Amino acid sequence: MFRIALFGCGRIGQVHATSITNHDQTELAWVCDPVAEAAETTASRFGARATTSVEEVFADPSVHAIVIAAATPAHLDLLSRSVEAGKPVLCEKPIDLDLVRIDEAWPRLAPHEPRVMLGFNRRFDPTFAEIQQRVAAGEIGTLRQLRITSRDPEPPPQTYLAASGGIFRDMTIHDFDMARFFLGDIVEVQAMVPTAPESPFAEEGDVEQAMVLLRGADGALCQVTNHRSCTFGYDQRLEAFGDLGMLEAANQLPTSVRASGATATESAQPYLRFFVERYQDAYRAEFDAFVAAIAHDEAPSPSYADGRAALELAEAAERSAAKGTAVRLPLAAAS
Amino acid sequence: MFRIALFGCGRIGQVHATSITNHDQTELAWVCDPVAEAAETTASRFGARATTSVEEVFADPSVHAIVIAAATPAHLDLLSRSVEAGKPVLCEKPIDLDLVRIDEAWPRLAPHEPRVMLGFNRRFDPTFAEIQQRVAAGEIGTLRQLRITSRDPEPPPQTYLAASGGIFRDMTIHDFDMARFFLGDIVEVQAMVPTAPESPFAEEGDVEQAMVLLRGADGALCQVTNHRSCTFGYDQRLEAFGDLGMLEAANQLPTSVRASGATATESAQPYLRFFVERYQDAYRAEFDAFVAAIAHDEAPSPSYADGRAALELAEAAERSAAKGTAVRLPLAAAS
Amino acid sequence: MFRIALFGCGRIGQVHATSITNHDQTELAWVCDPVAEAAETTASRFGARATTSVEEVFADPSVHAIVIAAATPAHLDLLSRSVEAGKPVLCEKPIDLDLVRIDEAWPRLAPHEPRVMLGFNRRFDPTFAEIQQRVAAGEIGTLRQLRITSRDPEPPPQTYLAASGGIFRDMTIHDFDMARFFLGDIVEVQAMVPTAPESPFAEEGDVEQAMVLLRGADGALCQVTNHRSCTFGYDQRLEAFGDLGMLEAANQLPTSVRASGATATESAQPYLRFFVERYQDAYRAEFDAFVAAIAHDEAPSPSYADGRAALELAEAAERSAAKGTAVRLPLAAAS
Amino acid sequence: MFRIALFGCGRIGQVHATSITNHDQTELAWVCDPVAEAAETTASRFGARATTSVEEVFADPSVHAIVIAAATPAHLDLLSRSVEAGKPVLCEKPIDLDLVRIDEAWPRLAPHEPRVMLGFNRRFDPTFAEIQQRVAAGEIGTLRQLRITSRDPEPPPQTYLAASGGIFRDMTIHDFDMARFFLGDIVEVQAMVPTAPESPFAEEGDVEQAMVLLRGADGALCQVTNHRSCTFGYDQRLEAFGDLGMLEAANQLPTSVRASGATATESAQPYLRFFVERYQDAYRAEFDAFVAAIAHDEAPSPSYADGRAALELAEAAERSAAKGTAVRLPLAAAS
Repeated sequence: MFRIALFGCGRIGQVHATSITNHDQTELAWVCDPVAEAAETTASRFGARATTSVEEVFADPSVHAIVIAAATPAHLDLLSRSVEAGKPVLCEKPIDLDLVRIDEAWPRLAPHEPRVMLGFNRRFDPTFAEIQQRVAAGEIGTLRQLRITSRDPEPPPQTYLAASGGIFRDMTIHDFDMARFFLGDIVEVQAMVPTAPESPFAEEGDVEQAMVLLRGADGALCQVTNHRSCTFGYDQRLEAFGDLGMLEAANQLPTSVRASGATATESAQPYLRFFVERYQDAYRAEFDAFVAAIAHDEAPSPSYADGRAALELAEAAERSAAKGTAVRLPLAAAS
Repeated sequence: MFRIALFGCGRIGQVHATSITNHDQTELAWVCDPVAEAAETTASRFGARATTSVEEVFADPSVHAIVIAAATPAHLDLLSRSVEAGKPVLCEKPIDLDLVRIDEAWPRLAPHEPRVMLGFNRRFDPTFAEIQQRVAAGEIGTLRQLRITSRDPEPPPQTYLAASGGIFRDMTIHDFDMARFFLGDIVEVQAMVPTAPESPFAEEGDVEQAMVLLRGADGALCQVTNHRSCTFGYDQRLEAFGDLGMLEAANQLPTSVRASGATATESAQPYLRFFVERYQDAYRAEFDAFVAAIAHDEAPSPSYADGRAALELAEAAERSAAKGTAVRLPLAAAS
Repeated sequence: MFRIALFGCGRIGQVHATSITNHDQTELAWVCDPVAEAAETTASRFGARATTSVEEVFADPSVHAIVIAAATPAHLDLLSRSVEAGKPVLCEKPIDLDLVRIDEAWPRLAPHEPRVMLGFNRRFDPTFAEIQQRVAAGEIGTLRQLRITSRDPEPPPQTYLAASGGIFRDMTIHDFDMARFFLGDIVEVQAMVPTAPESPFAEEGDVEQAMVLLRGADGALCQVTNHRSCTFGYDQRLEAFGDLGMLEAANQLPTSVRASGATATESAQPYLRFFVERYQDAYRAEFDAFVAAIAHDEAPSPSYADGRAALELAEAAERSAAKGTAVRLPLAAAS
Repeated sequence: MFRIALFGCGRIGQVHATSITNHDQTELAWVCDPVAEAAETTASRFGARATTSVEEVFADPSVHAIVIAAATPAHLDLLSRSVEAGKPVLCEKPIDLDLVRIDEAWPRLAPHEPRVMLGFNRRFDPTFAEIQQRVAAGEIGTLRQLRITSRDPEPPPQTYLAASGGIFRDMTIHDFDMARFFLGDIVEVQAMVPTAPESPFAEEGDVEQAMVLLRGADGALCQVTNHRSCTFGYDQRLEAFGDLGMLEAANQLPTSVRASGATATESAQPYLRFFVERYQDAYRAEFDAFVAAIAHDEAPSPSYADGRAALELAEAAERSAAKGTAVRLPLAAAS
């Protein structure tokens, strides 16, 4: 049994705590959160120890691996400590909101042969993963166009927005990673956002929606559509179009019930509510992959470099949207 | 140009008048209806002559073929006159409500080498026809189970019910023909109807719904579901299940619009309203087949015998429902 | 924690062992199976004790409740011992293959205030359960017609067939219970089966398919379609049709991937393979309901009477198919 | 009866000839085409007169209205002659490939109170038109995002490509008009096309695909996806997303058949092949609107200005794709 320490016990921390507890090869050793009461509640629910002290966790030699679900500003520090302690770490996205800090950290981390996995859970979603595998196997020939739709059911709280880094770093970042999952390196970004954003986004210098075009190194084009609210649930779709055909990921429903009546036919229910429901299997498969990497002493994937690349795309999209120009990748250091 | 005489100008008569007028090889010569005003209105709309006199129509040697869309009690007489005049005839179902009369008429008709086509329009529906062809071509292996759903949007007027011959002869008869289209000869019928029918069906000794089981000569089984009202439109589906797979005919929609909102997702509109809308292409294809048979001087299909067979199934179903026993086909003359 | 003893560790036994182990309030105490090795393998996998001795299990006073997943011939004896020991019991269907034995057992059991739950798992399927609730809430008005489709992916082994009691007692019994879930008491049955069954069914006096009509006490009619093989997966559908509309349970897919290419569009994958996959959530919800009944010291549902009623319907269907007559319920003792 | 003269009798000319002939209020008077044989074949098929002389058509005072389905370079001249002759004209898109010529022509045309309708047939498609009406009626609240998919089944012949004006003027122009149909004025365009186009597009300075972002004056954003080949048919979809929900136009199928077997379930056939099949109803409704405008002596819609606006968007997209910058509308004359 691998003993796992969990940092952060918000919504996504709960998801990880459950995965850790249910997995045959792992157990939850520590729950660490700056809010003592939160740490204790979660720890007690899952039979782990609670602490507010990061040091206490890293001082425990029986801890095999780390899962970081803390607030974003703490990610890079906790990730660095884990790497320096020689422990495999699964870190929620983003590594950090600042590319410069990410790049500055790397020379310190590299010598430790870091085993860092970034929490791009959607790569592990059974539907998206299957499409990626079937595309890779050639079912639709050469991939020409990729379309990714991601709409959240409702806006996050304003306090969350204030610290989120903006729509590209917080929300689109998942879609940037998905684009890279299918297309590999991205060489150009164009982005469009509202000129007069809705409240409360405007107050935070953010926007409620974005549309992005991406160009893959191999010539395929990609569109991303994001919206921060959606009445009918968590809208998560993908379409891969190639020379020989198309593979689509449709939205997912809580049951297979269809209703017909005088005003409508074949009506389904609203879609699965949000990421906890929609990506339940993905989180489980992601954690399985992390444990498998630990067990086989391998570097997990997606990696620190993948986390950095998605953030670079977010930064490029932000520049493109601000300036109204296409932005080429990789970004020049000075730009 | 083949000149066609039309008997009857109700809803289905209008459909035929349109087909006759639009077809490259036919023109509408006569519209004959006992209600002079109705005949005149339709005739004038389609540029034909109007009459209330059956004799006048049959006295016109320029008439090539007959289409019978008159009231059911007139079918057999008009059909017989057409055959005796040596003219091809397309007759709406049923030939008659009485098997005995149908059988008595045949010896008089047979010597004329009758070119009689029964109006089982659903055989010509592009969707059902394609399934039948794909089943015949072996796509699903041996056909094991057939399911036919037919629900009308709303009950017919009570006056119609009084003369309809009951649900099996009036409504299920189309499904009996469809079963024969797929299964060939039927050897056994079981039927179930409500013991306390709804109004106005009860008043007419009829029922608002029926469920029927059929056994094909080759061993396949078949279910038919009928209901005389349906809030969401004209429910017309079919499912052919075989050793190797299944072919289904889904309901058809006026547009491909799907709506999603806070309470429902992927909602379509109500289905095409009734037979005029749903089977528009089928009526056209049926008439094309009739004209092709005239042009090539061939016997059209489905035939008088097919019309008789469907009525025999209706009679068998009625007996089965009344007695609570399976009824074997062919019916014994005396039963 | 309620300690649970499990009898039988075949495929369905494994499902229950998992539910017991994962449930917060239960733990697997015993695995009892006549094959010692099977009992030991399962017990060791789930951290329970293994035995081949029924007596040893019932001698353990720490056991709170019983789950019976043994071979059918053992059901009634194990159920009776559980009831006599005052322990709640969840028993797989059928109680027994013989109505007479079921009725004879009852007078001995009744005085113990039996807490018996029958394993009609489909009542707990989220999709079917939701439709039943929405029907009960009046969404489609008065329920007029119910259609149940159940096709197994492949025939059971011939040895299984030999002991199964025939298609109605073994397979349709789930659909009979589903019909009762929606319609309440059933008052009439008509059934049709092949006259020349396929191999290996014919060898066992059984058939590979059946179609059944049922009449509910309140006047609604019901159709059941069964087939023992199905190339495209486990075909499990239901349609409830009422005055105001229709609720359908569509088949369920492993992912939401749809493929389009030169020969086909919108293709989905084969359906979830069989009951273990399709009814995973149903088995969990069923076990939750059983534990809730234990915890609140209530009689669980569906009950012994429900198990008896489904078997009575199976017997009625068998008589109907054999004699070609409608069979009325309740069955006369002597018939 | 309005007598109509048709210029051009290629594939789309045939569609119009059929609409003219089938409409109650119109008849086809002339078919004019530079290829005498083509004109004669079509004229004879539809009972009209044939000519290669434009002058002969305009010399016939009995002609009420003009339909232009000639090659693009002839559009503006024929349109101008029609307007100067005071005759209503339905002109296929584009008016011309050159905005400057379009603008230069206008001062000559305006004094004639031109009754010009541009052939943006998709506005009349029952599915798209219904979505537009439901959006306008507020069903989805404020429209936030529009997505338009348009993929042709196969590339046009190289000779066609050479004269087409490029993907934006030839193909996307329909989508630009659709964007304006929903969003009104467009104020900004971003476009991305392949840097290394496929053959034969590269040879003609054209590309096989494009992705475009549009900003509406009211703040809504729009994406367009185009591809010049598509194995599964003519891919024509649209998605309107608003505050309260979403309306989607799904692809359309020749029948409602769905197939299930060992390797796939719920498979539909390839989509309707190309515009003649997919937009059959749209062409008819478009022509109906044109005739209604003639009959009521009204200016038809979409207008010359709509035709100009779509071409301006095409030019803006071309500049954006070439320069990698957002292009603002209206275009400055000098740019």
